Parts: sequence; structure tokens; C-alpha cells
Amino acid sequence: MPAPRKADHIVAVDVGGTKIISGVATPDGRILSRSKKKTKPSKGVEAVIDRVLRTVREAQEASEIGWDRIAAVSIGFPGPLDSAKGIIYAAPNLDGWQNIPLGEALEKDLQKPVIIDNDVNMGTLGEHEFGAGKGSANLIGIFVGTGIGGGIVVNNQLLGGRNGTAGEIGHMTILAGGPKCGCGAEGCYEALASRTAITRAIVKAIEGGKDSILADSIKKDRDARITSGALKEAIDSGDKVVIRAVTEASWYLGVGAGSLINILGPDVIVFGGGVIEALEDFMMEIIREAADKVALDDAARDVRIVPAALGDDAVMMGCVASAWKRLRFVK
Amino acid sequence: MPAPRKADHIVAVDVGGTKIISGVATPDGRILSRSKKKTKPSKGVEAVIDRVLRTVREAQEASEIGWDRIAAVSIGFPGPLDSAKGIIYAAPNLDGWQNIPLGEALEKDLQKPVIIDNDVNMGTLGEHEFGAGKGSANLIGIFVGTGIGGGIVVNNQLLGGRNGTAGEIGHMTILAGGPKCGCGAEGCYEALASRTAITRAIVKAIEGGKDSILADSIKKDRDARITSGALKEAIDSGDKVVIRAVTEASWYLGVGAGSLINILGPDVIVFGGGVIEALEDFMMEIIREAADKVALDDAARDVRIVPAALGDDAVMMGCVASAWKRLRFVK
Repeated sequence: MPAPRKADHIVAVDVGGTKIISGVATPDGRILSRSKKKTKPSKGVEAVIDRVLRTVREAQEASEIGWDRIAAVSIGFPGPLDSAKGIIYAAPNLDGWQNIPLGEALEKDLQKPVIIDNDVNMGTLGEHEFGAGKGSANLIGIFVGTGIGGGIVVNNQLLGGRNGTAGEIGHMTILAGGPKCGCGAEGCYEALASRTAITRAIVKAIEGGKDSILADSIKKDRDARITSGALKEAIDSGDKVVIRAVTEASWYLGVGAGSLINILGPDVIVFGGGVIEALEDFMMEIIREAADKVALDDAARDVRIVPAALGDDAVMMGCVASAWKRLRFVK
Repeated sequence: MPAPRKADHIVAVDVGGTKIISGVATPDGRILSRSKKKTKPSKGVEAVIDRVLRTVREAQEASEIGWDRIAAVSIGFPGPLDSAKGIIYAAPNLDGWQNIPLGEALEKDLQKPVIIDNDVNMGTLGEHEFGAGKGSANLIGIFVGTGIGGGIVVNNQLLGGRNGTAGEIGHMTILAGGPKCGCGAEGCYEALASRTAITRAIVKAIEGGKDSILADSIKKDRDARITSGALKEAIDSGDKVVIRAVTEASWYLGVGAGSLINILGPDVIVFGGGVIEALEDFMMEIIREAADKVALDDAARDVRIVPAALGDDAVMMGCVASAWKRLRFVK
């Protein structure tokens, strides 16, 4: 009879507003297999939980790693939540998620420890353990997309704060009395520098009569979603309206980074998310310049401001790192 | 022969730009005796070190606690420094302090462990261990005077960050492109809400023709120092110019507090310093209202925003707490 094998693999799950991806990870962080499904959030809480369970099972089956060798299932979820209790407070992009005990529901079905944290926290942890922030003790992750999400690592631990909400840097005030944010406050970081803010500035310029290669689609549909790829094409073709809007957003991103250096004294700030991935070459230089103006010399010494390295895998890699920390495979 | 007594007392030293105070503290944090001298910073580094040493010796002699019962000398110093190495990087209010190995110099003379940290960090730690933040694990101290200093406690430990500078919240950007700050950046917290910023707003209003009970002294000397006490008197007498300037500063203080709640998720934010001490009744309500507008509901749940409790003793009490932590008298 063979000796029982060690349960040393993790199923990592990235739950997004549009898709759910599960992957089986080896002890050293390689993803062996993946399973992906659409989230279909409109079908409700039970249906989403069912789809999470199916991707977990399918990823495990595809990996040829027996279920007995899975130590835990670790999930990055899009919304404020209580990581310790596994309860989802809310999920702005999913229907009906209010105070849902997701951890309990999954543990009952899977009969494995289930670890849940905010997807942005997981992405930050992924970059910290395996990506652009590897080797640093203190890191800030800033993810720029439709909004701006953030995560903070202090002494190699994710900062949760009193209510598990720490790292909501998208809602630090950068311009008091400035543009209204979705949260109700004014001049928040994400109201100035997210893709939503960039789009708003472009629409305003076009409606004010400025010429842009995006003018046609905007005039046809004021609420057209301008992708990060479309922004990149416009910049590459020298579109002044878009260059101006993205330059301004980059400057604000840098101001926020400089502020965070003064407040927290990180070793590294990692910028990720769709907007940065597409426009890294254009934006990072402006971000660094603005941060340098705001950060105090003593605070900024040897602090690195870098683009993320893991792309879409950051959340899953963070799920792996988080599971290891919790299960104490590694310290 | 009596058994040797335990070295369980601390000499705490608060070094300021105008005065140096040393006190001998019991294991439970009572100050038994004090010695106070003018700092006389213009006499140079050696002279200031000598005055620190004299207050330490005099406080110990006055306490009737033998030198053998002093476990450590713990110092709050006004400027950026490397706490681990005991090196002062700089001290804006003292002459000639550039990269001075203060810890080494004092240890050589005193033959006791010497602990040094930034005075604002010490004040924050004092409020955390003995003052308004007693019992909280995560605290932010905001001290409003000529500038704004801050300290951050995470999981019962002062946050130092990469270069020992964390907590420089006076230089987080609240109003990008706003008034120039002493640090060179624009729209910093302290450029909007310190006593210096309040004074600037009052001078501007008076020079613009507005009437105020402070008008005479300002017209005589544009750079007259308006004390926190004078601000309080003016508000109590209904002076509209001063009420407006202090209201605006209080609002910005609250915006910054709300931002910090979103970033860090503290249990409590403690506001101290001369301006708050004098104007607490007027300012705290406005601060709380503004913070409430900026902080996200999930982040702000059960977070307290309170005035400091220890007044001038906060720094010395923090020195005591810091020494205990380092010497592991308590965890």
C-alpha cells in the first residue's frame, strides 16, 4: 500500500464580473490546469456559486492531481468582504450578493478549507510573492481599470484594517471639491485617473468640438465603452485629445503614488490593471515624474515604481500565496 | 546585603525646537520627576546634546530612583531619523543637525540603551498606549500645529516603512495644484490645514479688506505669529474671518481623515497638537462631518475620530511605551 501523499496543491479561483477561472497550483506556484466559465451574474447567487464549484472540480480533474492532494481552495472575489469569516458584504458587479456566507457554502460542498479575499488584495499579494514586487516586505498594488483598486502589504502581510477594507486607495481624495466619484465623495483618485475618468475627459473634449479619432464612436454613442486598446491606438496615432486625457490621468496616478510613499513608506509600488497593461510605455514615465514631485526625498529613497508582471494571473497567484500563508506551508 | 533591584524605570526625553524635557517614568507609566531646559538650537549640535544629557541626569537625581534602576533612555526627536541606528537625518528646527549619530553619542556617555524615534511617532505611540487610543490595535495620530505631523500604528506597532519615514501624512496631496507647501509640492494636507495655512487665509482676508479682531496685529506685522489661543479668542467673540478660516481647515482635516480611513482602515484616529487642543470643541465636529462624507461606509464602521488625551505629555509617554516594546518588558 503506498504512503498517503501530501495535500500540497491549491485550487486558486479568480471570480470576476464576466468570467470565473480556476487553476490547480503546485507547491512552487506553477498552474497545472485551468477551467474557465462565464460568470453570468444575472442568474443570481446560487448559480454563480454553482459555476465556481464546477470550475474548481473541472480544473482539478484536468490537472491529474487527486482531490486528496488539494490542501485548500483559495478565492479572489470582486467586492468588500470579511476575509476571516468568508462573508461577502457586497459585490457591485454581481446581482444579489449582500452578506452572503460564501466560505461556509463552499466548504460544505468541497470539504476543504476555503480562503476568500478581495480580488484586488489577492492580485497585490500575487505581485508581492511572485511578480514585480518579489522580495519586498512593503508593497502597494494599484490596479487601474474601470475603477482603481488597491492593496497594501506591510511586513509581508496584507493589511486588512478594522473592517477588512484597507487598501481602498481608489477613494483617497486627491482633489478636494473635484469631480464627483461613484462613491458619493468628490475628487477621489478613481474619479480622476481610472478609465472611466479618462473616457469622461475625452467625451467632454469631443463634445466641446475637439477632433479625435474616437469622435465618431463617441458621437454615435455617448456612453460607448472606450477600451484600453482603443486608447493605445489613439495615442500611437498621435491623437491629441486622447494623449492629453491619458497624460492628465497618469499625472494624478503619480500624485497619488507620491502621497502613498509619504504616508506608508513602501519598498515598491506596483501599477497594474487593463489601462496600465495597454499603456505602460506611455504612462509609467509620467507617473514616476509626478510621484517624484510629491514624495519627500527621505521617503522616496530607493523606492521603486514599476508595472505589474503577472497580468491576468496576478489574482490566482495571490490566491496561492494567501493559501500558503494561512496554511503555514511557508511562513 | 540587599538583592540588586530591577532596572525597570525609563528616562523619557522630549526634544523640541524650544525646550527639552526629561522625565523618569515608573514601570506603569507614571512620571516621577521632570527636568526642563531651553533647547538653544543656535548653539549647535554639541551644546544641544549636552543639554539633553543634563536634563536626563537632573530628572534622575530629582526622582530619587538610582541610576542602576534606569533600564533605558528613550528620546522623541523633531526630525526624520533612522530609529534602528539612532541617526538623525535632519532637524528642520535645529541648527547643524545633518546625519548625526545621536544614539551612539548618548550611549557612550550614559552607558544605557538609548532609543530614539521621531517625536510625532512617539506622540502617536503615547496616545496609543496610554491616551485616547488605548486598547486599539490600529491607530493614526494627526498632530496639527505649525505643520501637520502624523504617526501610524498597525497591529500595535509603529509603521516605519522603508526609510523610517512612514506617517508623513502632512504631505499627502488633498488638493492637487493647490497652495504651495514648504516641501515644494502643492496642495499638501499641511498646506491646507495647519496653523500656518489658517494664518495665511486670515492674512489674505484682512488684506482683502475684511474686518477681524486680528486685523491690527496683522497690519502691524504681516508675519505676526497668530497663536492657537488667539484663534480661540477670535472664534469665541464671533470673528467671521477667523471662523471661516478655521472651518475650512477643519473641513480639510476631515477630508484627510476620511481618506486615511479608506487607505488604512484604522480603529481610531486621534487628533492632537496645539491647534486642536485650543479649538477642539469648534473643530472636531466639522472634522467628523467631512471624514464621514469621504470615508466609505464599510471602511468607516465603528471607527472613532477623537481628540488626543495626553497633551504635552504624549511624546514622553510614547518614549516610555517605545522603550518597553524594545526592551520587551511587555510584549
